[in-house]
Amino acid sequence: MTQLSLSRRLRRTPFSQGVENFGVKSYTVYNHMLLPTVFRSIREDYRHLKEAVQVWDVSCERQIELRGPDAGRLMQHLTPRDLRSMLPGQCYYVPIVDETGGMLNDPVAVKLADDRWWISIADSDLLYWVKGLAYGGRLDVLVDEPDVSPLAVQGPRADDLMAAVFGDGVRNIRFFRFGYFEFQGRSLVVARSGYSKQGGFEIYVEGSDIGMPLWNALIEAGKRMDVHAGCPNLIERIEGGLLSYGNDMTDDNTPHECGLGRFCNTKTAIGCVGRDALLRVAKEGPVQQIRPISIEGDAVPPCDSFWPVLSKGKKVGRISSAAWSPDFDTNVAIGMVRMTHWDEGTELQVATPGGLRDATVQPAFWI
Amino acid sequence: MTQLSLSRRLRRTPFSQGVENFGVKSYTVYNHMLLPTVFRSIREDYRHLKEAVQVWDVSCERQIELRGPDAGRLMQHLTPRDLRSMLPGQCYYVPIVDETGGMLNDPVAVKLADDRWWISIADSDLLYWVKGLAYGGRLDVLVDEPDVSPLAVQGPRADDLMAAVFGDGVRNIRFFRFGYFEFQGRSLVVARSGYSKQGGFEIYVEGSDIGMPLWNALIEAGKRMDVHAGCPNLIERIEGGLLSYGNDMTDDNTPHECGLGRFCNTKTAIGCVGRDALLRVAKEGPVQQIRPISIEGDAVPPCDSFWPVLSKGKKVGRISSAAWSPDFDTNVAIGMVRMTHWDEGTELQVATPGGLRDATVQPAFWI
Repeated sequence: MTQLSLSRRLRRTPFSQGVENFGVKSYTVYNHMLLPTVFRSIREDYRHLKEAVQVWDVSCERQIELRGPDAGRLMQHLTPRDLRSMLPGQCYYVPIVDETGGMLNDPVAVKLADDRWWISIADSDLLYWVKGLAYGGRLDVLVDEPDVSPLAVQGPRADDLMAAVFGDGVRNIRFFRFGYFEFQGRSLVVARSGYSKQGGFEIYVEGSDIGMPLWNALIEAGKRMDVHAGCPNLIERIEGGLLSYGNDMTDDNTPHECGLGRFCNTKTAIGCVGRDALLRVAKEGPVQQIRPISIEGDAVPPCDSFWPVLSKGKKVGRISSAAWSPDFDTNVAIGMVRMTHWDEGTELQVATPGGLRDATVQPAFWI
Repeated sequence: MTQLSLSRRLRRTPFSQGVENFGVKSYTVYNHMLLPTVFRSIREDYRHLKEAVQVWDVSCERQIELRGPDAGRLMQHLTPRDLRSMLPGQCYYVPIVDETGGMLNDPVAVKLADDRWWISIADSDLLYWVKGLAYGGRLDVLVDEPDVSPLAVQGPRADDLMAAVFGDGVRNIRFFRFGYFEFQGRSLVVARSGYSKQGGFEIYVEGSDIGMPLWNALIEAGKRMDVHAGCPNLIERIEGGLLSYGNDMTDDNTPHECGLGRFCNTKTAIGCVGRDALLRVAKEGPVQQIRPISIEGDAVPPCDSFWPVLSKGKKVGRISSAAWSPDFDTNVAIGMVRMTHWDEGTELQVATPGGLRDATVQPAFWI
């Protein structure tokens, strides 16, 4: 049990009171903000997420707003994904790379209008990079962090709960699209998205003052649907192959190493800062890549540092996330493995804190 | 008691094992890294820091290395402090501002050579801003985070402990100067600096592999000096007026609002990105400014969100850090107060979570 010392620097959110009302048991810190990690227990939260509906305080997915005539140009500077065909109302998962092709973040870009975007960020101060590029490139664009805090509704009953609060129109939102929906006279962006594979929505709550009213409305409306406060679930996200920036990849890694090559159109993404660096890796492929890996034996402890992945005693990779999966009846893990050992079915060993364990490369998520 | 969930994303340090050997009780997260906050108790740690000597794992003060012919030019882009007279071997506390004059970080710059600098950062990914400016400005400079983890030795017996490990030469290091000292055949930067007012050093440990050997050598040599693992102490740093980026100021604030005008030479800092924006505030002064504030009554709880500062019921500021000080026999606090109410001796009220308390503006630290 590790204690966290609270301070202003670890920002509370517009929903913190709601989260505490549900007896949040543990937090992490993400974008200088509190992110709940456990309510009842990771396993109970996991089961409930797969069977009911949860409301998640994911305010830590801070937004970067780009506004002005060069907003689209700046957005394309940031990513090797070709954004030319993207329309207002769409969300794109976009790897963000620096001039060496190293990943700085893996956010969701929200195109509000041709000259207005939000970037819903993972855990790094991407704002600083975007501001630096805008300033250095003398672009006509305003870049800042608006008062927008996402609230996610995830789980199989998410449509019913959202419809109860926002009306049946939300049912028609397609995956990674968004619409505007009213709450207490305020028009909010509601997208079908979220950091789970159970389906659901993210509400971009603009204005901290309506945070708790919206939280309470969702909890109240969800009473007959077994709603509970929840949060991104370690087990479920590893099972689903959802990567975590800072855990599974850092600025050491290219998108291709992370299995995100399908989100890169390096040839046509003209203007992308990392384009030159990525052209070669896009053509030839990476020499190491992220893979799902199963680890045998009892439940492993939390993975708080890289665990070496070995083959015949030689290091061929590392595990960055791991958890016991009740549904898969094994430890599920995410690791980076060298090309020589990344084929499905390859038998490896993992040096966990409790000793060596047998492990097997599983089918890549994206195939 | 708030729990922290560990993961790879919250990086361990080269000294984590040493910190755990001493039974660290609580952490915070700082630059995506674990920073200890409590060993025995905040009050015991405070007393011991003022009377003996502590070894602090401040690896979270990550370094940004600037290397190349434009390193000095880039460094001056970052800050309104005039760096022309700075010599290799010196450390400067430098406010870092964006193009609007808002503070992005308040690091210590370490000038290793004319074409090589380290920036020892506070809690924000300043690397992204520096890389963005270097890229946008097409500067000939390499910018990255080297494998350097500072270890601080703080307290009245710091000179004796350091001399026992590095030799008597360390006693001659002047304040905010550094020299190179040998440890196990490695030459390390050792500066007289640190985040306390008790005196001491920061060792820039280059190479994670010598982290624990150095930790152990300091602990062993310090046995007869009552050495203990320690960490930046909430009470002592507020008493001493040491600001904390993210707590006491953010990118909303100018250096002048933070009482850091003495580190700004806005007129002569040619090249500083925020120079235009700061010229006016440098001349006219800010309309709100950081002040030490005493809060009456029993010990206040940790300040994990801004507490409004009131005068006759009207909001005139906010508290951002607070703690009970045994030596001052009152609650010491740091707050931002409007010009109309910032004079020494002004009587105010603070809306703490436990109710309104009387409070008084204390003399500014920097006068």
